[in-house]
Amino acid sequence: MKRIAIDMDEVIADFNSKMIPSFNQRFNAQITLADLEGLTIQQLRPDIKVQVEEMIGESEFFGDLAVMPDSPRVIKKLAEKYEIFITTAAMEFPLSFDAKFRWLKNHFPFINPMNIVFCGSKSILHADYLIDDNARHFEHFSGEGILFSAPHNKGVIGYRRVKNWLEIESFFSTEK
Amino acid sequence: MKRIAIDMDEVIADFNSKMIPSFNQRFNAQITLADLEGLTIQQLRPDIKVQVEEMIGESEFFGDLAVMPDSPRVIKKLAEKYEIFITTAAMEFPLSFDAKFRWLKNHFPFINPMNIVFCGSKSILHADYLIDDNARHFEHFSGEGILFSAPHNKGVIGYRRVKNWLEIESFFSTEK
Repeated sequence: MKRIAIDMDEVIADFNSKMIPSFNQRFNAQITLADLEGLTIQQLRPDIKVQVEEMIGESEFFGDLAVMPDSPRVIKKLAEKYEIFITTAAMEFPLSFDAKFRWLKNHFPFINPMNIVFCGSKSILHADYLIDDNARHFEHFSGEGILFSAPHNKGVIGYRRVKNWLEIESFFSTEK
Repeated sequence: MKRIAIDMDEVIADFNSKMIPSFNQRFNAQITLADLEGLTIQQLRPDIKVQVEEMIGESEFFGDLAVMPDSPRVIKKLAEKYEIFITTAAMEFPLSFDAKFRWLKNHFPFINPMNIVFCGSKSILHADYLIDDNARHFEHFSGEGILFSAPHNKGVIGYRRVKNWLEIESFFSTEK
């Protein structure tokens, strides 16, 4: 059985829909999704990087993110043919562990908790596919990286790119 | 550079030296290390398995475990020649994430946080060696498993076995 590793933020969890209004409110700003084209929030506003990371690092920040459209249904279907692991880079925000774990349990109850991985470097993952919005994780990954479109990765080339979970469903429906 | 994945509990963190007195005090018992030969505490006392796991699952249980003798020095030395990852099965005790992360930061400050992995199934790890006290993790592991002796794994055969960190130091000093 082939194995698919799936990232959380901006892949199954809608990070920006919470981060942008939270950012605007806290820092009295008016950024939009378009401002994040080609940039992370830390790159867009290096002047307040530390404060932004404090905001994201608060223990409950990740607890109420919205679910990316179609991701539960498509992952449930993929789980019939593939071994599914959720692999999230949580080490930058250690207080988020618990909220992320509960979020997964609530929204993806069919995922075996034994198949959840909190890591930093994703080079440690042994999987056939990695669906992620950060192409840097593909560099030392032994399988095939699938880039999930997000504003910050707009200019990135060199990888199979999917715009949404319907495209992932379509890709794996023809994959052997 | 070859990669070594290293488990935490009963490998670099002395789980039993805290668990046994905590168990005896809480359950008014008199178990010793010898009682755990060939058995986990849950197997020894299935009658109170739930309560035992509640005790171990408390958020601070893992925060003050003692460090296994020689492990910081040997790992620091191995890190000159190998890529070191700490890979711990934390998903059974999700409240332990934060305490485990802080414990590592305190006792192994030279380990890059990006090289810490909290997982359930260790089949997801892509490494050349896995040093672990649970042989079940070797079954679907793609590299070589090295069994770290613990009372519960006394009867287990079929894997290279090391009794302590000095033996690990010796093994890797001749390994290419």
